[in-house]
Amino acid sequence: MQAARLHEYTDEMSEALRIEDIDRPDLERSDQVLVEVEGAGWCQTDNHIIEGMWTDYAPQDLPMTLGHENAGVVAETGDEVTLVEEGDPVICHPVQTCGICRPCRLGEDMYCENSAFNGLTTDGGFAEYLQTNERAVIPLPDGVDPAEIAPHADAGITAYHAVKKAVDELNPGDTCVVVGVGGLGHIGLQCLEAMSAADIVAADIKDEALELAEDLGARHTVNSAEEDLADVISDVTDDEGAQQVIDFVGSDETTGLAADVVAAGGDHHIVGYGGHIHEPSQALVDGEFSFRGTLVGKYAELQELVALVDRGDVELRTERHDLDEINTVAERLEHNEIEGRAVIQPP
Amino acid sequence: MQAARLHEYTDEMSEALRIEDIDRPDLERSDQVLVEVEGAGWCQTDNHIIEGMWTDYAPQDLPMTLGHENAGVVAETGDEVTLVEEGDPVICHPVQTCGICRPCRLGEDMYCENSAFNGLTTDGGFAEYLQTNERAVIPLPDGVDPAEIAPHADAGITAYHAVKKAVDELNPGDTCVVVGVGGLGHIGLQCLEAMSAADIVAADIKDEALELAEDLGARHTVNSAEEDLADVISDVTDDEGAQQVIDFVGSDETTGLAADVVAAGGDHHIVGYGGHIHEPSQALVDGEFSFRGTLVGKYAELQELVALVDRGDVELRTERHDLDEINTVAERLEHNEIEGRAVIQPP
Amino acid sequence: MQAARLHEYTDEMSEALRIEDIDRPDLERSDQVLVEVEGAGWCQTDNHIIEGMWTDYAPQDLPMTLGHENAGVVAETGDEVTLVEEGDPVICHPVQTCGICRPCRLGEDMYCENSAFNGLTTDGGFAEYLQTNERAVIPLPDGVDPAEIAPHADAGITAYHAVKKAVDELNPGDTCVVVGVGGLGHIGLQCLEAMSAADIVAADIKDEALELAEDLGARHTVNSAEEDLADVISDVTDDEGAQQVIDFVGSDETTGLAADVVAAGGDHHIVGYGGHIHEPSQALVDGEFSFRGTLVGKYAELQELVALVDRGDVELRTERHDLDEINTVAERLEHNEIEGRAVIQPP
Amino acid sequence: MQAARLHEYTDEMSEALRIEDIDRPDLERSDQVLVEVEGAGWCQTDNHIIEGMWTDYAPQDLPMTLGHENAGVVAETGDEVTLVEEGDPVICHPVQTCGICRPCRLGEDMYCENSAFNGLTTDGGFAEYLQTNERAVIPLPDGVDPAEIAPHADAGITAYHAVKKAVDELNPGDTCVVVGVGGLGHIGLQCLEAMSAADIVAADIKDEALELAEDLGARHTVNSAEEDLADVISDVTDDEGAQQVIDFVGSDETTGLAADVVAAGGDHHIVGYGGHIHEPSQALVDGEFSFRGTLVGKYAELQELVALVDRGDVELRTERHDLDEINTVAERLEHNEIEGRAVIQPP
Repeated sequence: MQAARLHEYTDEMSEALRIEDIDRPDLERSDQVLVEVEGAGWCQTDNHIIEGMWTDYAPQDLPMTLGHENAGVVAETGDEVTLVEEGDPVICHPVQTCGICRPCRLGEDMYCENSAFNGLTTDGGFAEYLQTNERAVIPLPDGVDPAEIAPHADAGITAYHAVKKAVDELNPGDTCVVVGVGGLGHIGLQCLEAMSAADIVAADIKDEALELAEDLGARHTVNSAEEDLADVISDVTDDEGAQQVIDFVGSDETTGLAADVVAAGGDHHIVGYGGHIHEPSQALVDGEFSFRGTLVGKYAELQELVALVDRGDVELRTERHDLDEINTVAERLEHNEIEGRAVIQPP
Repeated sequence: MQAARLHEYTDEMSEALRIEDIDRPDLERSDQVLVEVEGAGWCQTDNHIIEGMWTDYAPQDLPMTLGHENAGVVAETGDEVTLVEEGDPVICHPVQTCGICRPCRLGEDMYCENSAFNGLTTDGGFAEYLQTNERAVIPLPDGVDPAEIAPHADAGITAYHAVKKAVDELNPGDTCVVVGVGGLGHIGLQCLEAMSAADIVAADIKDEALELAEDLGARHTVNSAEEDLADVISDVTDDEGAQQVIDFVGSDETTGLAADVVAAGGDHHIVGYGGHIHEPSQALVDGEFSFRGTLVGKYAELQELVALVDRGDVELRTERHDLDEINTVAERLEHNEIEGRAVIQPP
Repeated sequence: MQAARLHEYTDEMSEALRIEDIDRPDLERSDQVLVEVEGAGWCQTDNHIIEGMWTDYAPQDLPMTLGHENAGVVAETGDEVTLVEEGDPVICHPVQTCGICRPCRLGEDMYCENSAFNGLTTDGGFAEYLQTNERAVIPLPDGVDPAEIAPHADAGITAYHAVKKAVDELNPGDTCVVVGVGGLGHIGLQCLEAMSAADIVAADIKDEALELAEDLGARHTVNSAEEDLADVISDVTDDEGAQQVIDFVGSDETTGLAADVVAAGGDHHIVGYGGHIHEPSQALVDGEFSFRGTLVGKYAELQELVALVDRGDVELRTERHDLDEINTVAERLEHNEIEGRAVIQPP
Repeated sequence: MQAARLHEYTDEMSEALRIEDIDRPDLERSDQVLVEVEGAGWCQTDNHIIEGMWTDYAPQDLPMTLGHENAGVVAETGDEVTLVEEGDPVICHPVQTCGICRPCRLGEDMYCENSAFNGLTTDGGFAEYLQTNERAVIPLPDGVDPAEIAPHADAGITAYHAVKKAVDELNPGDTCVVVGVGGLGHIGLQCLEAMSAADIVAADIKDEALELAEDLGARHTVNSAEEDLADVISDVTDDEGAQQVIDFVGSDETTGLAADVVAAGGDHHIVGYGGHIHEPSQALVDGEFSFRGTLVGKYAELQELVALVDRGDVELRTERHDLDEINTVAERLEHNEIEGRAVIQPP
């Protein structure tokens, strides 16, 4: 089968992945599932993996097929699989978990002690077939197109997971800032709208992104290249600050906003990971705010996100590409030229 | 009356405060309370205030009487006070709150929009009398000595508040690290013991502090000048990490431990504020951990801490000093020479 | 001034209250507020008070002016009031709280140990003027008509409070049943829509109520006089049951639905109080469900509800009546003839 | 192998179970585990099952081997089991769960849609061997005797689970009532002591039970055959009531205490299921309290309880019996003659 594989880390996106012919994976355990991939979203994290930015955090054996936002149709199932059968359309949570370790037992899939992460620690979905397991697939409701929903497998649940943590702390009339209205941000914003009655302030440096934010329900938009976000928040909130900030950028500059923007007792959620936090301890004490990391999302949360899609509460902006255009997609995302989300469609 | 007052910011603790004779405060509102101070704890924050480290965070008019850990006996009450009367022994929450603003209505006293903080933004308790209000005083149970309990008004509830947030996330058998077993740390450790069944690891650079920690219930102690805390935690937790870390130091070095020490999904609570956080956003994402600031504690939490003291669950190590020894106390704390907590007793 | 007062308990609504001329209340404490009433909602609880159904639960001295859903304009303020001044439009939380007792300090106003409840334990707002206090009034945003918003002071926050507890437990795609789409139910349904992405099933015995429910966002409606609610829920939820049930009726019949309708681990919220619970302990154990009582709502929750109204998320159906029509209103509600909410307007 | 089996429902405990020779179970799936039983606790629920009290709630095919509190040594494992191997001592959670359905994915094992409950819906552990699965076994720490810990598999986690829900709501100094200090109650009391700083009031009708309660940390004990529990709670709490009540009896009489004993906003947890709840809806509204059912506990909670046992925080009172004494044990429990917990030891 054809697959787009990483052979060595590079900053040169035009030559990032090599399309080659490899063996279709075999199923080895009774709970495994083979999925014929219909769509696989391209993610900023793919660029980061290619650059070698994850080598310190996750074990990687090259060459490896990338692609962690996958959806398709079940092609084969292990002997004891009951949840799905051949022909079922599914979305694939990126992490194959064991169901046995304590984190799994607590419902905290992302902390599974025996996991494999498609396209990060094991082969992913930029290929005709993907091997995953029963605990990673979610059957799709009637009428949902796998290629259309694929990016929710990572972009979607990452945004949803962060939003869900924020929503737990938001009362009607509170202010929530969405920093960065790109692939994740535009999903997060819709989740916020559906799940809370908070007033949303969206910040970005591109006017088109802000227009999209307004369409999707943002009450205020701020072009942070032109306006001072802290001033706007101060105005909008009568100097109280925003109860929650969801930072889909995570650069030095955006994390540096927290002390001025977050209300006492509030949270600055780190979703994007473009830079660092540098902050005096005293600032966190004085404002009793938190920096909270956010890591993808749980299987059950992906079920909830599928429910939101099925209800019509969340829509993705996607564009589709053939597998052989994959490095062009990598380059265009590097240059911030993708609107919404690019989905790769293997042959 | 006699009072120890700050006239200008200085790094020279031997001349920090000036003892002088000033007018006893008058009560101006129907809810005010005048307390004859029996004990006022000296706090690391007093040193920080003297050094001018709070000028960016809190409005201060010098000269000002310091002292925010106060207890004593009610000397006079405003017309409409019903909670206490003349002669009642009380501990004084450091913040006089309004009871009217939204944070007050949510029970979040520390975020009161109309507050005065004794010894930080208004006169404090290193004086014969302290003016406060009905919403800041808690009547003491029979047999509790005001001078003995005074440090709980800030050191105590700050530790308690951080511990309470940690306890909410701790299951039996989980690991909680206490970084720094000084004035706050030794209280926090006892609160943890009383309120959870977590396994406590205490870290300090002084062996006496670690012996105290062991007496108070720590399961493991680590002299972090000699051993690598991350290695110990890795050993103790089978590489999982500690679910919660309570950092009573807050230096660059201790906040830098988080990525290696905190378990996935866990928290590093910033209580001490000796330095900065410097951390890649990616580390917070990869481990999904949080840096959570902690600011004193609520009035209701001080009630709970008084209950812990009354139950015999928490004991303070204190030493007592006359008002005129106050600058010596300031110096000794600066040199880390106070065991437990120093309490100033005005004449 | 004119006031509608209860002189003795009766089941005869046509003679329930007597309109009489009494003295305008004087302000006695520095925190009191006198409000000129512009609208006072008539509530099912008024009928219950008239019937004597609250004598076991709340101390009552007759004669007493009823009316606990009040809004109007500030006419006079005590000396130390800062939140409002003469001329400000306000909605009045029905409970005057002390701000001093532990429940108040926890933000749990409804459990205040020194409270007065307008129209239940002290004079209410079916009168030209109402005496209340600073901690019970909420300034209205520009453009909100006091007479229009008045019923939110009890019907509104009671519904909101129950919904908020339910929303804490609801994930997108979960099912929430609203039992009874009357005065409270139609508000609760709108709050649910605004604050969650749950699928709402509305049940009532009147078709007009169900049409309203559909307009307001219910995904399914059930005429429970004709269909078996348990069967419908079983269908809709694939036999799992509804994660949350909000019972605005509280009769023997509706509480009896819980064991068949509530999903494992779910809640049946008791808001209406028309009857009893009769249930084997084993049923609660087997389904691990709860019966949770709900009592009005907090001051801070009324602020949040005002924010929802201001955002346009919640609209009330009201009809207005002069003070002298008050017993007719009482009778009509008794016969279930009021659509939405009746508001009394004193002269 | 020998097994004690139920052939027909009966009220006659002396003839409840029949000891017979049946085939040792075979392993059929890759995740199954065969355990050689070393101890199996006898539970009040066994009496209830024998009486036919669970036929409405759980599917049962007779004859069936009873016994849901099992511990022993792994005798055989399915092909893909990794958590344990032959020879490992384990405690067996009573429910074999699938790990696939949504409740399992949320960590809510007890609501598993594809579960088998040993000794209730499938064969249990009053036998030489028990067939269970990988998701139901927990390896024991060194030095823990399976026969000693067996009753924790149900009595233990049921008590622990209820206590954990209560502890979430308990602040230091709050009051928690434990109703019934028998098999479950004496475990629950120790968990409460270890996990909270609440003041415990224990109620029972046997003086020996109350002495045990005092030894285990109860601050007050009430012989409810002689004293009025509501009066005592009123005294102890200054008329506020107990924030939490854990009812290990669940009779008409004990559930009837809630309205008088539970503080505003508090909970009455139903653990025992001896009778009914009969309560006016208005009582739940007026006191805003809840009746909360409690059903066994999660696998992860059994891990936490094992940690408590390993820490020395919880000790069981047990007596041991051979398999052929099993009907005598059934009878003695029926007559309330077992102190602590009876453990059956198959040959």
